[in-house]
Amino acid sequence: MRVGYIGLGIMGGGMARNLLKKGHAVTVWNRSAERTAPLREEGAAVADSPRALAAGVEVVCTCVSDPAALAAVSQGPNGFLAGLRPGTLVIDFSTVGPDAVRALDEACRSRDARFLASPVTGSKNAAAAGTLLLMCGGPADTFQAAQPVLTAVGAKAVLVGDIVQAAQMKLIGNLIIAHMVEALSEGSALAAGAGITVEKVLEVIQASGYASPFWDFKGKALAARDFSTHFAVDLMHKDLTLAMDLGHELGVPMPGTAAVREVYQLARAQGMGQRDIIATAAVISPALAKS
Amino acid sequence: MRVGYIGLGIMGGGMARNLLKKGHAVTVWNRSAERTAPLREEGAAVADSPRALAAGVEVVCTCVSDPAALAAVSQGPNGFLAGLRPGTLVIDFSTVGPDAVRALDEACRSRDARFLASPVTGSKNAAAAGTLLLMCGGPADTFQAAQPVLTAVGAKAVLVGDIVQAAQMKLIGNLIIAHMVEALSEGSALAAGAGITVEKVLEVIQASGYASPFWDFKGKALAARDFSTHFAVDLMHKDLTLAMDLGHELGVPMPGTAAVREVYQLARAQGMGQRDIIATAAVISPALAKS
Amino acid sequence: MRVGYIGLGIMGGGMARNLLKKGHAVTVWNRSAERTAPLREEGAAVADSPRALAAGVEVVCTCVSDPAALAAVSQGPNGFLAGLRPGTLVIDFSTVGPDAVRALDEACRSRDARFLASPVTGSKNAAAAGTLLLMCGGPADTFQAAQPVLTAVGAKAVLVGDIVQAAQMKLIGNLIIAHMVEALSEGSALAAGAGITVEKVLEVIQASGYASPFWDFKGKALAARDFSTHFAVDLMHKDLTLAMDLGHELGVPMPGTAAVREVYQLARAQGMGQRDIIATAAVISPALAKS
Amino acid sequence: MRVGYIGLGIMGGGMARNLLKKGHAVTVWNRSAERTAPLREEGAAVADSPRALAAGVEVVCTCVSDPAALAAVSQGPNGFLAGLRPGTLVIDFSTVGPDAVRALDEACRSRDARFLASPVTGSKNAAAAGTLLLMCGGPADTFQAAQPVLTAVGAKAVLVGDIVQAAQMKLIGNLIIAHMVEALSEGSALAAGAGITVEKVLEVIQASGYASPFWDFKGKALAARDFSTHFAVDLMHKDLTLAMDLGHELGVPMPGTAAVREVYQLARAQGMGQRDIIATAAVISPALAKS
Repeated sequence: MRVGYIGLGIMGGGMARNLLKKGHAVTVWNRSAERTAPLREEGAAVADSPRALAAGVEVVCTCVSDPAALAAVSQGPNGFLAGLRPGTLVIDFSTVGPDAVRALDEACRSRDARFLASPVTGSKNAAAAGTLLLMCGGPADTFQAAQPVLTAVGAKAVLVGDIVQAAQMKLIGNLIIAHMVEALSEGSALAAGAGITVEKVLEVIQASGYASPFWDFKGKALAARDFSTHFAVDLMHKDLTLAMDLGHELGVPMPGTAAVREVYQLARAQGMGQRDIIATAAVISPALAKS
Repeated sequence: MRVGYIGLGIMGGGMARNLLKKGHAVTVWNRSAERTAPLREEGAAVADSPRALAAGVEVVCTCVSDPAALAAVSQGPNGFLAGLRPGTLVIDFSTVGPDAVRALDEACRSRDARFLASPVTGSKNAAAAGTLLLMCGGPADTFQAAQPVLTAVGAKAVLVGDIVQAAQMKLIGNLIIAHMVEALSEGSALAAGAGITVEKVLEVIQASGYASPFWDFKGKALAARDFSTHFAVDLMHKDLTLAMDLGHELGVPMPGTAAVREVYQLARAQGMGQRDIIATAAVISPALAKS
Repeated sequence: MRVGYIGLGIMGGGMARNLLKKGHAVTVWNRSAERTAPLREEGAAVADSPRALAAGVEVVCTCVSDPAALAAVSQGPNGFLAGLRPGTLVIDFSTVGPDAVRALDEACRSRDARFLASPVTGSKNAAAAGTLLLMCGGPADTFQAAQPVLTAVGAKAVLVGDIVQAAQMKLIGNLIIAHMVEALSEGSALAAGAGITVEKVLEVIQASGYASPFWDFKGKALAARDFSTHFAVDLMHKDLTLAMDLGHELGVPMPGTAAVREVYQLARAQGMGQRDIIATAAVISPALAKS
Repeated sequence: MRVGYIGLGIMGGGMARNLLKKGHAVTVWNRSAERTAPLREEGAAVADSPRALAAGVEVVCTCVSDPAALAAVSQGPNGFLAGLRPGTLVIDFSTVGPDAVRALDEACRSRDARFLASPVTGSKNAAAAGTLLLMCGGPADTFQAAQPVLTAVGAKAVLVGDIVQAAQMKLIGNLIIAHMVEALSEGSALAAGAGITVEKVLEVIQASGYASPFWDFKGKALAARDFSTHFAVDLMHKDLTLAMDLGHELGVPMPGTAAVREVYQLARAQGMGQRDIIATAAVISPALAKS
């Protein structure tokens, strides 16, 4: 398929590259042009503007950092909406919240284009390897039509429901991650006090019925006191706050998440907002702080 | 090896059977004799007393429900200690707390016998299938000598450290399970409010980097509102209390676990103490209560 | 002074009456006219519109339920702003949040009128008795000029700072109340389990250094299982949510308040949103639930 | 009355002095003799041993630091039990837990002596001023008989129930204090972020219906960042742990107290165990930490 990709950041760059590898004809655009060079060498065309990009493709993909960036690439005389042809499929891989996605959905519909929200979960490595998890929101036939693109960039795409539900599911997923990190932190802090290493805790966990690749990912970092950032404390705190807000809107008591969020707040108050979420272990136990 | 097995309850029965299947010469004893009959049919010898059992084997295994039961089968004129020969290996699979295990360890040492604590994690099904996780405590050479027995009953045996550390590791594992259940409960309650089913949440989780067999185990039960007991709320509450006590002894703040434990306390106050731990989801959300 | 009073609800009615009692010349207006009748009998004039009211007084007081009601009485051709003369003092006793108050402040300034925010704390009884607590925000000279009105309706007026700080202080006060209610609930639940009555707990508390009139107010209600509403669970939940939002904006960890708010959420999920805040004790203990 | 007083520490010294002032004939004993000198000068007799003390008085008072100290002054050849005559009234002002008090109660009964447990609440200053709060446990007639002593040392004595209930009530009182401190900490931290001083918060609180002398006591210390110890973090943590243990024994969910206790644990992990309980505010907010 002829696929346009707007936004070649940490995630987007890897995803565009995987579209190329799978044989799609890819045209790219990025706010700062230097990021387009490596993709041009690998065979991608480079468009002069989002509008020009949209005019020549069957699928427009976007992956930007926030609602303002999404507005900048979609609206105005050079925005992709201005070049969008009826029947084009638009897929947004950004995590920008329900309001921005809903606005884009409506703008696409008014141009007879189709829209799929597809927030992603996974690290930079997963983006490069094409093993992201895609939590999709939109009509079933749009989801179906997007399969050639989705299978190129992700290991798995789940149609969660509508576009708002896809965004909510992403919050729920991050909530689960935060609980797992807290479990690992408090368990490892107890273990440290008892003279049991994080490595040993990890060995037991991974031999159990509650084993998970995630324990290895964060447990090895904790064992090495390596708090380099894959998922920042500030970002998780924001998502936990959105999840709590949703819970309060829906009338759902969340006593565990409420307690966990305050651990993130304590971490932020101690200057760890830009560290990885596993750095919250240092709030619990000096023995787990970076040496 | 000639192996004696004392305590043929839900877990012990399956474990003794696996020892037979792996070709060990097994002698069994149980407080109520009727439980010995099926094993006798499968080839096990049946001893008249724990003392008699100990006199004829190389390894004595125990798997009983509490410290009093352990004292009953080990002490007194018919207890297995009275029949224990020097060099015999004693393996306790019970979860009876550090004091009882320490006392048994000392009694074994004073008779020149070797002792290995080996609390197990896993369900009745895992005991039957020989796929339990064994968290062992004791000297490395004793752990080595026990391998023929351990590999017959468990999928994996980890030497955690000394006998107290093995018991502590088991508490840490249960703490992690409790956090995972809380994450699943609160996440599923949010999802229910947002019109997303537990099945869909589970589909997303299991496609993610934080996938785990445990999510399927509890998530499917929650989706079916099946709160039949694999791990009772009362039992987990007891273990969380022990973990918190350990945390306070060691000076480890545990804000997440503290919040989670009170959810179990709320469940108990609402009459759910004997339900499965996933029933705590009903404390959070009426939408997740059993229909 | 010639004082106009807009909004004769539960609080406003009592406050206007106290202004009359202290000898002020009072003109009133209320959306539904029947509430003006009793005050007319006691000597108040009744205006045809907020605009007409403002045209004839030195001080305009407002006490309405939400931002929409405040906009309705202040804006438009019949709003009081249309009749406001330079130099008039406007005092808002509502609790409508910083945005609405800030907008009103600006509208007053643009007409050379002075504005004082004065959210109140206290019950219907306190409004009738003139014993409210007033948390004022605005310039010191405006606060000074308002003294004849403030002393007529309240036992105490504190100049907290600017108008936003006055609103924030009110949230902080309610946060403290929520913690006191939780302390009384959990303490009384423990006492009930130990066979000690709420009355006895109250006797001890009130003999201690941490005695407070508030314990009597809520403790006697709890002892009688009288959950009739003075301060609704839903309302406190809203204020705790605003306080948590403020905490997260300011980077303040609030682990205690986070836990307490979820108790209110549990109470709401159990259908107690419109009961008094002391009804949250029933979430903690069936022994404290209404018989 | 002829009153013997054993244990002239911070609290006991002031209490014995107040007995003298009220005209009682006081005999004292203390483990280290130098503490008896000032009381001798003020008119007290000094006994050679607890046994000798008990032989000459109608009432024996004890006020020691822990169960071991209570055993040391009561048991053995020189303990006061050895000198106790039938009908003597024994009043224990210590806080030593139910087991120690129950043992002493039984020892007194077996000698036909009467026993009243009377844990005290209040500071060193209150002990000196005779304004302590006494939470008494024992038979009503014993409580009645003790009035001349109780009114000499305390502002108020409440007969809570039996000796165990008196000890439980003291835990409940301390639980309430911990919640009040947390409310003040989190409220003041929010205020600090909003540019409102602790002094201003205090002014508002003390003008409200939830005013309490306790707010002044701790609020002025917090405003001055004066964390000198009246009630140590370690001690409160111990009492909150006992209260939680009681809650779990009685099946009472305590989500608020659970969260608050972990704040104390965080304070301890940060080296503040021996600071005053108001130092926990520094866990919440760097702005409230001692400068």
